[in-house]
Amino acid sequence: MWEILGGDLERVIITALEAAGAPEKTTRLVARHLVDNDVIGHHSHGVMRLREYVDAIDRGSLIPDARPRITDESTSTARIDGGWAFGQAAAEFAVDVAVRKAREAGVSAVTIRRVCHIGRLGRYAEMAAEAGMAAVIFTCGGGRGINQAPFGGLDRKLSSNPIALAFPSELEGPYVVDMATSAAAEGKVRMHRAQGRETPDGWLIDRNGNPTTDPRDLYDGGALLPMGHTEGHKGYALAFMVELFGGILSGGGVPGDPADSFSNDSVFIVLDPGRFAPIDELTGRAARMTDHIKDTRLRDPARPVKYPGEIEAAARTANRNEPIRLPEATRDGILSVLRDLSLPEPAALRRGL
Amino acid sequence: MWEILGGDLERVIITALEAAGAPEKTTRLVARHLVDNDVIGHHSHGVMRLREYVDAIDRGSLIPDARPRITDESTSTARIDGGWAFGQAAAEFAVDVAVRKAREAGVSAVTIRRVCHIGRLGRYAEMAAEAGMAAVIFTCGGGRGINQAPFGGLDRKLSSNPIALAFPSELEGPYVVDMATSAAAEGKVRMHRAQGRETPDGWLIDRNGNPTTDPRDLYDGGALLPMGHTEGHKGYALAFMVELFGGILSGGGVPGDPADSFSNDSVFIVLDPGRFAPIDELTGRAARMTDHIKDTRLRDPARPVKYPGEIEAAARTANRNEPIRLPEATRDGILSVLRDLSLPEPAALRRGL
Repeated sequence: MWEILGGDLERVIITALEAAGAPEKTTRLVARHLVDNDVIGHHSHGVMRLREYVDAIDRGSLIPDARPRITDESTSTARIDGGWAFGQAAAEFAVDVAVRKAREAGVSAVTIRRVCHIGRLGRYAEMAAEAGMAAVIFTCGGGRGINQAPFGGLDRKLSSNPIALAFPSELEGPYVVDMATSAAAEGKVRMHRAQGRETPDGWLIDRNGNPTTDPRDLYDGGALLPMGHTEGHKGYALAFMVELFGGILSGGGVPGDPADSFSNDSVFIVLDPGRFAPIDELTGRAARMTDHIKDTRLRDPARPVKYPGEIEAAARTANRNEPIRLPEATRDGILSVLRDLSLPEPAALRRGL
Repeated sequence: MWEILGGDLERVIITALEAAGAPEKTTRLVARHLVDNDVIGHHSHGVMRLREYVDAIDRGSLIPDARPRITDESTSTARIDGGWAFGQAAAEFAVDVAVRKAREAGVSAVTIRRVCHIGRLGRYAEMAAEAGMAAVIFTCGGGRGINQAPFGGLDRKLSSNPIALAFPSELEGPYVVDMATSAAAEGKVRMHRAQGRETPDGWLIDRNGNPTTDPRDLYDGGALLPMGHTEGHKGYALAFMVELFGGILSGGGVPGDPADSFSNDSVFIVLDPGRFAPIDELTGRAARMTDHIKDTRLRDPARPVKYPGEIEAAARTANRNEPIRLPEATRDGILSVLRDLSLPEPAALRRGL
């Protein structure tokens, strides 16, 4: 492990992205997203992604200076063509459009397509909630990135198809859910593999369709199982609907398409709760409900019940000014990018533990 | 078991509801919902509910001639006060309003509160899809009907809080998901109890918080567990968000409220897919995706993969003109209602098997 201050890490990422051809505004936006995910402990969506983003630029599947644009809109709806921009830039643009339209119309629906990896869906849900809005987000993987078996099936047919929901709060952070509709997100399986750990029962099948706890099986023709174990019909049904709302509605890619590129095709549905009641009244009632739900006997006294989003909000507060600890492999990945771009090794990357 | 034709069953229900004080239009609407649920095999939301609805009228908690009314609206949003009308009448009214507004504005959000048991959520999702719309519905139980433990907690703190999603299709029926965010809906536990069967692992804890497969434990201080088993944090997080979207946003009841009555407080979010692309293009692509997903090796060759909503659509087609088979207890319940309302026993109820 090594450690680095968040500000230093952001500067390293910004320098690399700029050398890779991204405009300054985009470099700052993407670096902020990646480092924020490391700060709150969601390393699978953190700076370890730099290597793959730069590779995507080299391949031509990510256009670093592309600008997402609205191709069609009304007061409350918009279709956005991401133009294969950085996913974070396209998704943040879509949230901004959806929030603006919801503020005007009360509710909005905005789709994006032709968009690279957008990262942690929860961040966009949080952004909507921080703007005082409630949000429902469905994101699929386009015609590629297929890794989930339908309930009762043995072949990869769907992506892990996450759902995010957000509602404003008066607590430390907004109410936010961000969950794969598969039993686990692919990134979690990847981390088990990197750490040489078995995956829990109910996450995976191997290439022959047999249950497995070996994370390597996912990368050898196996598949993620839908969320729910014996109630996996629920996870499967949600995953299917995410393809419809995220992929079909947006005009993006869906399973079975002869797609060249992975695309986080999405729909952002945003509501202005202030249209329904004064926001302070809503968040005050929600806070009292939260206290009531948390006040329960516990399975494990060391693990209190939390509201959705509480872990991320608490981690952001606790870690804001602390150095971020990351595996050596992440530093190696960043260093290899810097070398490829003929950039010097910054001093901040030399600190071990 | 006994059997009865759907049309005969509807007439019996209409007669009973009329004698209980409901206006003719309402009696037809509620009877249609109840019988349709029996036709497609969702008996927990079928005519077995008649007894409890008439009891609710007697108690004054269901106002049979109440009319739901819009208390506040804009082009794309509305708040509806159900006035303690039949839940089916209030929910159908809300869907109509939401569909009309979505057709005008592209997307709409409509809340209802002070509303009795609305029955099978999937039906309202289907109605939106049959009108060419996509829908997202969240429904909670108000301040009562609390039966689900939070993940890691041992006390009842949430309702089973279902979610429904729908998208139009060119297949036999629309794409529809309707699922409790608990591992199972309470009605399923009730049916296991009635049949003397154990519930599957992961559905229930008893009053002491221990895992149990005895359905009776739910009615003796136990609780439903959230959907997901070891990934129950996902079901819990969804259940929590449903309270916010369904209960808080609508101005209805939420856990911890000193509520007198169960209330299926809900939000109906409806989108017009035609704003995003021609509807035939969308449903055509969805149909091809459906074929692709279904074309998979199977865990059990006798159980093909289905699209969400396929079971209900196929059952409705297959059973439309067939007699409905129901348990004796359901007939006894109907007969007791008829007796209490001084109505004669209709010949159609005399047929056994």
